[in-house]
Amino acid sequence: MFYRVDMANLAVTKDEGVKYQGLGGRALSSRIVAEEVTANAHPLGENNKLVFVTGLLSGTGAPNAGRMSLGAKSPLTGTVKESNVGGAMGTKLGRLGIRGIIVEGLPQKDTAYILRVSTEGLFVEEMPALQGLNIYDTVAKLQEVFGTKVAIGCIGTAGENKMVSACVGFTDMEGAPTRQAGRGGLGAVMGSKKIKAIVADDSGTKMVSFADEAAFRAGAKKLANALLTHPVTSQALPAYGTDVLVNILSEAGGLPTRNFSTGRFEGANDIGGETLAAVIKERGGKTGHSCSPGCIIRCSQIYKDKKGEVLTGGFEYESCWSLGAHLGINNLDDIALMNRLCDDYGVDSIEMGVTIGVAMEAGVAKFGDSQAAINLLHEMGKATPLGRILGAGAEVTGKVFGVRRVPTVKGQAIPAYDPRAVKGVGVTYATTTMGADHTAGYSVTANILGVGGKVDPLKPEGQVDLSRNLQIATAFIDSTGLCLFVAFAILDIAEGLEGIVEMCNARFGWNKTIEDYLEMGKQVLRDERGFNKSAGIGDGADELPEFFRTEPLSPHDVIFDIPKEELDKVYNF
Amino acid sequence: MFYRVDMANLAVTKDEGVKYQGLGGRALSSRIVAEEVTANAHPLGENNKLVFVTGLLSGTGAPNAGRMSLGAKSPLTGTVKESNVGGAMGTKLGRLGIRGIIVEGLPQKDTAYILRVSTEGLFVEEMPALQGLNIYDTVAKLQEVFGTKVAIGCIGTAGENKMVSACVGFTDMEGAPTRQAGRGGLGAVMGSKKIKAIVADDSGTKMVSFADEAAFRAGAKKLANALLTHPVTSQALPAYGTDVLVNILSEAGGLPTRNFSTGRFEGANDIGGETLAAVIKERGGKTGHSCSPGCIIRCSQIYKDKKGEVLTGGFEYESCWSLGAHLGINNLDDIALMNRLCDDYGVDSIEMGVTIGVAMEAGVAKFGDSQAAINLLHEMGKATPLGRILGAGAEVTGKVFGVRRVPTVKGQAIPAYDPRAVKGVGVTYATTTMGADHTAGYSVTANILGVGGKVDPLKPEGQVDLSRNLQIATAFIDSTGLCLFVAFAILDIAEGLEGIVEMCNARFGWNKTIEDYLEMGKQVLRDERGFNKSAGIGDGADELPEFFRTEPLSPHDVIFDIPKEELDKVYNF
Repeated sequence: MFYRVDMANLAVTKDEGVKYQGLGGRALSSRIVAEEVTANAHPLGENNKLVFVTGLLSGTGAPNAGRMSLGAKSPLTGTVKESNVGGAMGTKLGRLGIRGIIVEGLPQKDTAYILRVSTEGLFVEEMPALQGLNIYDTVAKLQEVFGTKVAIGCIGTAGENKMVSACVGFTDMEGAPTRQAGRGGLGAVMGSKKIKAIVADDSGTKMVSFADEAAFRAGAKKLANALLTHPVTSQALPAYGTDVLVNILSEAGGLPTRNFSTGRFEGANDIGGETLAAVIKERGGKTGHSCSPGCIIRCSQIYKDKKGEVLTGGFEYESCWSLGAHLGINNLDDIALMNRLCDDYGVDSIEMGVTIGVAMEAGVAKFGDSQAAINLLHEMGKATPLGRILGAGAEVTGKVFGVRRVPTVKGQAIPAYDPRAVKGVGVTYATTTMGADHTAGYSVTANILGVGGKVDPLKPEGQVDLSRNLQIATAFIDSTGLCLFVAFAILDIAEGLEGIVEMCNARFGWNKTIEDYLEMGKQVLRDERGFNKSAGIGDGADELPEFFRTEPLSPHDVIFDIPKEELDKVYNF
Repeated sequence: MFYRVDMANLAVTKDEGVKYQGLGGRALSSRIVAEEVTANAHPLGENNKLVFVTGLLSGTGAPNAGRMSLGAKSPLTGTVKESNVGGAMGTKLGRLGIRGIIVEGLPQKDTAYILRVSTEGLFVEEMPALQGLNIYDTVAKLQEVFGTKVAIGCIGTAGENKMVSACVGFTDMEGAPTRQAGRGGLGAVMGSKKIKAIVADDSGTKMVSFADEAAFRAGAKKLANALLTHPVTSQALPAYGTDVLVNILSEAGGLPTRNFSTGRFEGANDIGGETLAAVIKERGGKTGHSCSPGCIIRCSQIYKDKKGEVLTGGFEYESCWSLGAHLGINNLDDIALMNRLCDDYGVDSIEMGVTIGVAMEAGVAKFGDSQAAINLLHEMGKATPLGRILGAGAEVTGKVFGVRRVPTVKGQAIPAYDPRAVKGVGVTYATTTMGADHTAGYSVTANILGVGGKVDPLKPEGQVDLSRNLQIATAFIDSTGLCLFVAFAILDIAEGLEGIVEMCNARFGWNKTIEDYLEMGKQVLRDERGFNKSAGIGDGADELPEFFRTEPLSPHDVIFDIPKEELDKVYNF
């Protein structure tokens, strides 16, 4: 079932979405954007659409199938955007039988609306009291009204201010807004439509139905077995969270430090997962926390400050890096505070951290100065002119300050793996339809972790094939509602992938092969790439910033040396 | 003769530029950029090149052949950029036998360099005293040292601050810096290379030599006759300057007013050419002023303030519009002051005016408030955070403030003709390789002025052919060193065009036909488009901002309704 919400007249309609049959998650959100949004629509204008969609397995109770996709034309990149998020919302929407909510138009009135969805339907309601609140307060206010069992996705002031780095924050299973649909500025699209929050109440729902429940259960078991067997998903992630990667990447010489000027951070251990877990334990927080129903990887955590008050959660490697090593900062409490501020104002912590690093490169503040970085975050929150520059992301900040070392692709900040020392992910940054995005084809697996084979991260050979295969597979995984981290297990354990295929088939009564599902992944990339091309972003844009090709990265003294012609072969399928 | 200057080691070399034989002006600058600048070079980095080139007829004394071209990868648009400028420099470089000066690399030292060129050669000299000066002071200081007969091109603080709207200001025949290579931020490229000024002394030179001097003179006479006959070049422009267009465009409903929200300005007459000429006359300024040697059109002027002090010159329609109607300002003295400030800080007055309009749309200041606009210009000059936003141009300003009505194409501000009511120029904005640029294919001729035929400006029919033909012809004219305004005459008087062909042939001993020269124009566009494509700017980017297609423009209630597929036919040649 699809809901369409026209904000111009606050009308809600319902349909079966026949033309989108067989699609879920990213396959669905990207198809809707490609079909329904004109390529030159202004991302903050009436003709952009914001879509919230569930995956093929949402609401089924499959292991780690709690994720959902938001889609729109991105105000940050101008590309199609799928922003994938965990937390409680995906499952609730799935149980409510919702495949997609498509929000169109712009409202006349300057107020705050919420979209409230339950078994009774979807309702657009005005809640002006929410205007100007940040995310933690917004959630608290909504929970006062609707209770703590609802799932909430909402924007902070960054989204209301239409900052193109604005995210949409989602509540986890305890109702804390620690999960973000972070990338691509979809919070600004939501802000342009004056939608402050979406609130889902699934009380009264049952588990979704299956074409073949027994087969589904069998498939689910296979995936669960794989997840509970593989050392990454069963040991490293629950114990240390994604932040376990800090020391690994620094050791590998691929941890971008001080705005990508070196690949190893002397303070890595101070901010890495081992230290993080120890601090959490000491202060009575929680590691091994599940962010969404059915999650058996449990890479999230609850981080408390020195006084024992909860400061932040979902404290990822990416944030520890972007607000830490990238800024030359090794104080975990300061980084945690900045993560909280990003989550509260409602900005992507990757984009914001990278942006502050670019501002530091411009001399706006000094590398290593936590307090200055915190102050810059508050500038962004207050939407001062300087804050607005930062809120517009790394590429704009670089342009405004005349900086040359600006780590972005297609306008989006490059995440926590230096493409010179982790070349497979460099190929992904350059070529994905999303702008720089590690999750789109996470070659760190074979480059660094020895998962799914081994490809030397420092050499150009094999990276294009690696990235292509992962990008295709990822586009499928992102369409299921499964957490991408299942990939760690299924790349090594064939049974896990079989389980996914079997679950999808059993859910809908399909008889598809893995090849069919990979074809779905390819079609996602074609849909997305077609949109981007129409929007003016041509093949030439599949490239990294110049400095990666000219400035050698210590300690390995490597440049990104995969020729442009090779990069173009990613789309040879 | 070509000079190459490597700023990394301050070395100067000289060569004959064999591979660039037969090329001048834009054909030459764009070819050099396309051949020698890597497509993903950072515009402010060591691998961008800044080229100063003369045209095929520079230094010949041909009528109105005083213009020259600057080229680089643009930091504003990311495209190849040819920025064309009048004043005294082109002729002096031509007489010095210089076809091009190619500046490469970045210097180590933070200082101010000048490039000094004379019959003795080209010298890179350090003049730290120039650092931090604006353009009028820079020129004064250089004239103290080198006398008033040299030609000077220099940047102000905007260029030093690497603001991507920075221009390069050039002196006119009286040594006043009233001419700008305005568009595309080449002042920032010059600033990145720490070149504060280029100073040319042509004393001791003779007129360039000719393969057939008599034939050249005959051709020159034909062009001169056309220019002195056609009413636009012989009457309207010398009497009123380009500002004569304000009332014409407002009357036609195509004068973009208050950030392109209407097409007619109630204050048009207060800022139009007729009023301008009257004020100049009353205060003892000058109309009918030639900006460059050999100019017989004389559209420039010297504008004095109420006290009789010279305030500005080269006070164009574009500036009167961008700083006037576009901002809802009808006070000519305020506009003149803003024009002076743009010329002095060294920013493109089109980009800056449009940017302030976008900021006004965002609520940063009120439309019609001159003092606020002047204050914003000073913010830019002081490089405050707000000033840096503005200095980064209209597109960035729109993105930073979340504005939807942002009149730019490929990152460059749209000039003074609303594409909804002057559709031929709309086609040019959308499709030119330069980002929005009226001069690239000035369809205003047939759309509004009845020059070179007549094509209804409000209808879609015929606009693509009109724009294509003009873009090709313009690429040739821009390669000769001729002022584009000769086009007004030659579009109606065939003899004028014959004269140009004959002069080019007689200069070099060629035997080319007009078709050969138009082929040169086509090749320019191919070179430029090839570069842009490699730089990631695909065919899809040949499009106007969405609002031109969705918001009807009063008084004619027209939208831009030329389908994207039709726009793509511009390059069917």
